[in-house]
Amino acid sequence: MERLPGFRDFYPEPLPHPDVWSADARQFIFDKWRTTAKRYGFREYDGPPLEPLELFTTKSGAEIVGQLYNFTDKGGREISLRPEMTPTLARMVAAHERNYKKPIKWFAIPQLFRYERQQKGRLREHFQFNADLIGETDPAADAELIALVIDTLRAFGLTAEDFVIRLSSRNAWQDFFKHGGGDAAREYEFFQCIDKLERAAPDESEKKLSSLGFSLAQVNEFIAAGKPTAELENILQNLAARGLKDFIKIDYQVIRGLAYYTGVVFEAFDRKGEFRAIAGGGRYNNLVKLISGGKVDLPALGFGMGDVVLLELLKARGLLPKFDSQMDVFVVIEDEALRAISLKLIYDLRAAGFAVEYSLTPAKADKQLKRAQELKVAHTIRAESDAYVRIRKMSSRDEVVAGFADAANHLG
Amino acid sequence: MERLPGFRDFYPEPLPHPDVWSADARQFIFDKWRTTAKRYGFREYDGPPLEPLELFTTKSGAEIVGQLYNFTDKGGREISLRPEMTPTLARMVAAHERNYKKPIKWFAIPQLFRYERQQKGRLREHFQFNADLIGETDPAADAELIALVIDTLRAFGLTAEDFVIRLSSRNAWQDFFKHGGGDAAREYEFFQCIDKLERAAPDESEKKLSSLGFSLAQVNEFIAAGKPTAELENILQNLAARGLKDFIKIDYQVIRGLAYYTGVVFEAFDRKGEFRAIAGGGRYNNLVKLISGGKVDLPALGFGMGDVVLLELLKARGLLPKFDSQMDVFVVIEDEALRAISLKLIYDLRAAGFAVEYSLTPAKADKQLKRAQELKVAHTIRAESDAYVRIRKMSSRDEVVAGFADAANHLG
Repeated sequence: MERLPGFRDFYPEPLPHPDVWSADARQFIFDKWRTTAKRYGFREYDGPPLEPLELFTTKSGAEIVGQLYNFTDKGGREISLRPEMTPTLARMVAAHERNYKKPIKWFAIPQLFRYERQQKGRLREHFQFNADLIGETDPAADAELIALVIDTLRAFGLTAEDFVIRLSSRNAWQDFFKHGGGDAAREYEFFQCIDKLERAAPDESEKKLSSLGFSLAQVNEFIAAGKPTAELENILQNLAARGLKDFIKIDYQVIRGLAYYTGVVFEAFDRKGEFRAIAGGGRYNNLVKLISGGKVDLPALGFGMGDVVLLELLKARGLLPKFDSQMDVFVVIEDEALRAISLKLIYDLRAAGFAVEYSLTPAKADKQLKRAQELKVAHTIRAESDAYVRIRKMSSRDEVVAGFADAANHLG
Repeated sequence: MERLPGFRDFYPEPLPHPDVWSADARQFIFDKWRTTAKRYGFREYDGPPLEPLELFTTKSGAEIVGQLYNFTDKGGREISLRPEMTPTLARMVAAHERNYKKPIKWFAIPQLFRYERQQKGRLREHFQFNADLIGETDPAADAELIALVIDTLRAFGLTAEDFVIRLSSRNAWQDFFKHGGGDAAREYEFFQCIDKLERAAPDESEKKLSSLGFSLAQVNEFIAAGKPTAELENILQNLAARGLKDFIKIDYQVIRGLAYYTGVVFEAFDRKGEFRAIAGGGRYNNLVKLISGGKVDLPALGFGMGDVVLLELLKARGLLPKFDSQMDVFVVIEDEALRAISLKLIYDLRAAGFAVEYSLTPAKADKQLKRAQELKVAHTIRAESDAYVRIRKMSSRDEVVAGFADAANHLG
């Protein structure tokens, strides 16, 4: 029986097959995400992986349904697996924001789902680090969030040579559009054209832009100038104060596809341009109000960082550690008469915090030692009598004899 | 907009409302599960939350569908949110078992789903710690797994006064049934009757048992005698060697409802009998063969421990810690001229591993200090000039002045 197309199985390393994913690498990534978020004062939250379909159509319009993993449940409800976390966050914040000091700084590591026509190797789920900052309009909030993106990537060993934050602003484009005489009703059409600039054929863009009253040359000139707005300048200075100047560039080509961004937007890319965006985010000052039906109005911004592109990048840069069994000790049971007391030793070592493996059934000593080597344990221990154990340090082959109760003290 | 009935929102503590769940408590539980499993040499795996419906009906028969969160996807596939992890595990093991040394010791922390008629407060999802041991028939494997159940609960501070493992065996009941002249074809019917014994009315059980050629008195006598089989005796001795005798009792009332158990079965219960089972598991030696269509035949056993009952029990016993913001340091910015250098300090402290909070925007010093107190930080730091910082230990109010680069060394 096969798993569903577009879904992943996560196995312990070493991986048995190129078609499966590493549970160890996944946990490694989750741990770094969690640790960095906490250093920045972000608190963890989570919501249901299933939500009413309406939550997503309210935010993104009915056209989003084509990309959703949605269905009708047995109770006749229209529901969907979550394609992103922000609507759930907005729902949760709107429900209980009064109980939390502003700004609210929250993060989550949800699994997200989308149903696109299946393409070879295209995934229908991924995990995403989401961090959001709610209740603060000052650009200091944008800087804090971008610093978190940078520091998260640095926590994996990535440097300013590996990645860059392309910083932009819908406000800058809004001004450009307005001053150029654009029709306010067609502003989002213009944003979408800018969003596609890098991928679209130049004459297509030219055609579209001219229908909006602009020329491609005019747009390209604005991008090339890359003159930061006062708000972006503020963010740049804040990040420079932290020593993060080298990780940022103003890049107005970035505008983000989604309709709901309202101000600063950014994406993290590898410098070599080999991969899709590593992370992306921005301001969405109107979303909480929209989701709460007007009841709660809070400015907000956030980003998402997926596990798939990040994993590819870490692999390509040689930054993914080797994951082994992470066992500390192998207890060798040579004399079956000493099995009972060995079980006690194993129990006590585990209770003391050591990861301990042993042979469940009688086996030759050399077979047990071979297994200990495969597991790359730091020490083996064998009971010599019902009073003493022999501890061997695997790296040096040094041995020491100790009393049972004293064994743990020799495992430093 | 509301979340779906039977699903949970997880918020950071302190909780804003009795109707929501604690993300901090959830992570606390997951961390303990993960840490204990690793000490026992179990490796983490995971599969998709969605599987083909057939995976679950193959294992449990078509009648399971009534309890599943299943639906038809946009591609016309019959699929289901996973109600349990074992079928996915069996699928994954069957696909790649040759690459792993036996016994395979794996664990996972999946979210599981079921669609039952909605009852007040009844959840449709929960998280479950699953650990399985595959490829070993010896009762030493059963003992190792049960020791993990016990140690996992002990890791939360629960003792032999709080919980007990009720150990039983389908083999014992099989022998009882066979020797009593039971019809082999109706064995599972008999097992189901035993499973319901505690909840069913005595005359109902009597009627059912008599239709199978047995009397309730006969059955009750067998339970009261509680004579361990040789296999159970072996497990008891193994656990006694580890010092875990007080955590176990033979209890033939436990037989587990699911059809696929083949030998030893067990459940963990709180001693006061206030809650549903904390954990349950047993041997399922035929399942891997069944799921793999006969290709792979491996003996196996495992258990599941849900987050909901465990959380209730920990709360009731006062074993759930208070979760606060877990911030280490609050950097007070009194003089806005020193904000830039304070940002650098914040950055460096976070890079050194400290959780650091500060006011994103200008605020009065006493307001900042109040926030520092709310966050229960151990230290506040304020820049005194562009060369020196003043560090205050919150518990003693002791202050020390240090150079910027030296600040981290005073946070011990």
